[in-house]
Amino acid sequence: MKIIDSTPRADGFRMPAEWEPHHGCIMIFPERADSWQFGGYSARKAFAQVAEAISRSERVTVCASERQYENARRLLPSRIRVVEMSSNDSWARDYAPTFVTNGSEIRGINWNFNAWGGLVDGLYFPWDLDNKMARKLCDLYEKDMYDLGNFTLEGGSIHVDGEGTCITTEACLLSAGRNPDLTKNEIEHNLHEYLNIDKVIWLKRGIFNDETNEHVDNICAFVKPAEVVLAWTDDEKDPQYELSRSCLEILERETDAKGRRITVHKLRCPSPVTVTAEECEGLDSCDFQPTRTPGERLAASYVNFYIANNAVVMPFFGDPADEPARELLAKLFPTREVIPIQARDILIGGGNIHCITQQIPIYTNPR
Amino acid sequence: MKIIDSTPRADGFRMPAEWEPHHGCIMIFPERADSWQFGGYSARKAFAQVAEAISRSERVTVCASERQYENARRLLPSRIRVVEMSSNDSWARDYAPTFVTNGSEIRGINWNFNAWGGLVDGLYFPWDLDNKMARKLCDLYEKDMYDLGNFTLEGGSIHVDGEGTCITTEACLLSAGRNPDLTKNEIEHNLHEYLNIDKVIWLKRGIFNDETNEHVDNICAFVKPAEVVLAWTDDEKDPQYELSRSCLEILERETDAKGRRITVHKLRCPSPVTVTAEECEGLDSCDFQPTRTPGERLAASYVNFYIANNAVVMPFFGDPADEPARELLAKLFPTREVIPIQARDILIGGGNIHCITQQIPIYTNPR
Repeated sequence: MKIIDSTPRADGFRMPAEWEPHHGCIMIFPERADSWQFGGYSARKAFAQVAEAISRSERVTVCASERQYENARRLLPSRIRVVEMSSNDSWARDYAPTFVTNGSEIRGINWNFNAWGGLVDGLYFPWDLDNKMARKLCDLYEKDMYDLGNFTLEGGSIHVDGEGTCITTEACLLSAGRNPDLTKNEIEHNLHEYLNIDKVIWLKRGIFNDETNEHVDNICAFVKPAEVVLAWTDDEKDPQYELSRSCLEILERETDAKGRRITVHKLRCPSPVTVTAEECEGLDSCDFQPTRTPGERLAASYVNFYIANNAVVMPFFGDPADEPARELLAKLFPTREVIPIQARDILIGGGNIHCITQQIPIYTNPR
Repeated sequence: MKIIDSTPRADGFRMPAEWEPHHGCIMIFPERADSWQFGGYSARKAFAQVAEAISRSERVTVCASERQYENARRLLPSRIRVVEMSSNDSWARDYAPTFVTNGSEIRGINWNFNAWGGLVDGLYFPWDLDNKMARKLCDLYEKDMYDLGNFTLEGGSIHVDGEGTCITTEACLLSAGRNPDLTKNEIEHNLHEYLNIDKVIWLKRGIFNDETNEHVDNICAFVKPAEVVLAWTDDEKDPQYELSRSCLEILERETDAKGRRITVHKLRCPSPVTVTAEECEGLDSCDFQPTRTPGERLAASYVNFYIANNAVVMPFFGDPADEPARELLAKLFPTREVIPIQARDILIGGGNIHCITQQIPIYTNPR
C-alpha cells in the first residue's frame, strides 16, 4: 500500500456513483454498548441481515474486533469474509476509505475522522481506531491511498452522481467541529480535487435531530444522474418540513455539473420515531452522560439505503410509510430487487443502512 | 470461508513441498516482551528484514496487533501488506494454517495449538489468540478450511517432500502435552489423512534444548525429494552430537514414500550459542519466572531457513560456520539466491526464520 502524493483529479481518478458496479462492500460489526442497546445483540442481528442482503450480489467484508470475531463468524453466512479490525464504533460509510477509480484501478482516500465534530460536538472520545481504518482497509485490499488526513470529512456527508456533481449539506461540512479554518471555497476545492467533481450542490440542512450535523446521506441521494430522492414530510408542523422544503427549493433551482435540471422524488418519512424508556435503559452511558433520553426523536429516513449490484437495501421502521417508500424505490431502481430490513436497532445507534456500509468499485473487469 | 467436513486426502488435496511455487507468505509481527528482548524493538527489525527478503519474490502479509500496526507499517516496505490480527506471540509456522492444494484451489488446515505443550509443558498461557489465527487467516484469504481442532500440531513439527513423505520427531509429536490419548499410529493416521502423505519418517529427537519439544524444522529439512539437510556437529562432547547422530542413522536406513534412499547433507551448527546476562535482563518475566537464564543454550541451527520463490532466507549467527552453511545451501538451491539474516534477535525468542513464516501455495496459475 503506497501513499500517493498527488490528487485523484490530477491522476484521472474519480469517485463513481453508488449504482456503478461494485467489487464489494465493507461493514463493521457493532459492539459498543453506549451506541447499541443491550450490548449490541439486536444490532448485530440487524447488521448481519444487511450484510446478508448485500452479499447476494457482491462480496462483503465485515470488520470485527477480536472480541466480536466469533460472533460475527457465527451470525454471518460463510460467503461473507470476516476480518479482525479494531474500531471505536461501526460506521463504515464515515471512516472506511472513499474509493476512486480510473476505470481499471481503484485507490482509497483517507480523510480525517473526528467522531462527527471532535472536541466541539463529536459524539464520543476517543476516535483513534476509527480514524485508522481507512489506512488499514487500503492496506487490506492492497490499494494505494490518497492521504488527506488534514481535512475532516465523513463518507456519509457526500453523495456523487459519478458525472461531476457532488451533493452535501452546509450544516455538516461548514460545522465548527470539522474544518473551522477552511473557507467554503477551500472545502469545495478539496471535494473537486479528491472526488474529481466539477460542481457541489450545497443543501442547507438535513434530517431533524440528526447528530452527524445532518449528513446528506440521510436527507437526499442521487438515484441516477440529475435525479434524486429527498426525505419529505407533508406535515407543516413537523420541524422536518422546513428542512426538507429548503432542500427542495435549492434542488429545484439548481442544475448539475452537466447543466441538467434535477428531478426530485419526495420520499416520505415515517411518522416521527422516538426512543423509548426501555431502549434508553439498555444503552450504557458515555462520558457519564446518557446517550439517549426517553422520547428523543431519532433521525429516521428511508433515504439511508444502500445500492448494491443487484439490490437496494433499505430501512423499514414498522410504519405505514414503509410500503410506499419501498414502492418508490422499486420504481426508481427497476433492475434491482428492493430488500427492506427492519432497522430500528440500527437507527437507535444514530444512523442507518447507508451509514454502516461502504462500497468498493470494481477494479478488474468482471468475468 | 466454509468448514469442510471431509479430509484433504479424501478430496485430493495434499500439502506441497516448500520449494513448490508460492502465492506468498504469512508472518506475525513480534511484540511480547517476555519473548523478545527490550520490548521487541530489535526483533521487529529482524522480522522486517526477513519479510523484506521474502517479499522480493512473493507476496508477504504481516499480521500485527492494533498496538503494533503503525510500527509494522513503518518498518516494512509498501509492497508488504500489513493486516491487523491479534495473537499471543509471533510464530506463523506453528499456528498459521497449513495449506493444501489440489493443483488449482488451496484450502487451509486448522490444527489445535496449545503453546507447545499446554498445561503440561507449554511455554505461555493463554494461547487462545494464537489458536484462532488459522481460522482468521483462512477467512482473510477466503479459503475453505479443514478443522482438526481436536488434534494438537504445530506447522514446525512437520516437513513434507510433496511426494508422499513426511518427516517429524517423536520427541515432539509423542510428547505428553499434545495428544497423550492418541497412539503413534493414530497420530500418523492424521498426518496421512490431512497432509495426504503415505509415509512418516520418525526421527527421535531434534536440536538440544529446543523448547518446542524439538521440532523437526530446526534439525532436518527436505531440500528436494529424497534429499535432506541435517543439523550436525562433529564435536562428540556436544550433547547435540548424539541427537544428530541418531537422526543420521535413521535417515541412512530409511526410504521415502516412493522407496528412494535418502541423501543426507550435514549442515554444521554454529558453536553453541548462549544467552547473555544483558539479554536476560531485557526479557520480561512470564508467570513470575524468568524466561531465560544467563548462559542458557539457545537452539541455534541453520536448518531453520525459509524457501521463498526465488530465495532461501537463512539465519546467520555471527559464527565461522555461517559462511560454510550459506555455501552448502547455495549449492543445494542453485536456482535461488541465498539471503542471510543476522538472526540472534529471532533466536532469543525461541525459534528462527522458518518458525516465523508460513508459505501459501499458489492457487491460480501464474500469469
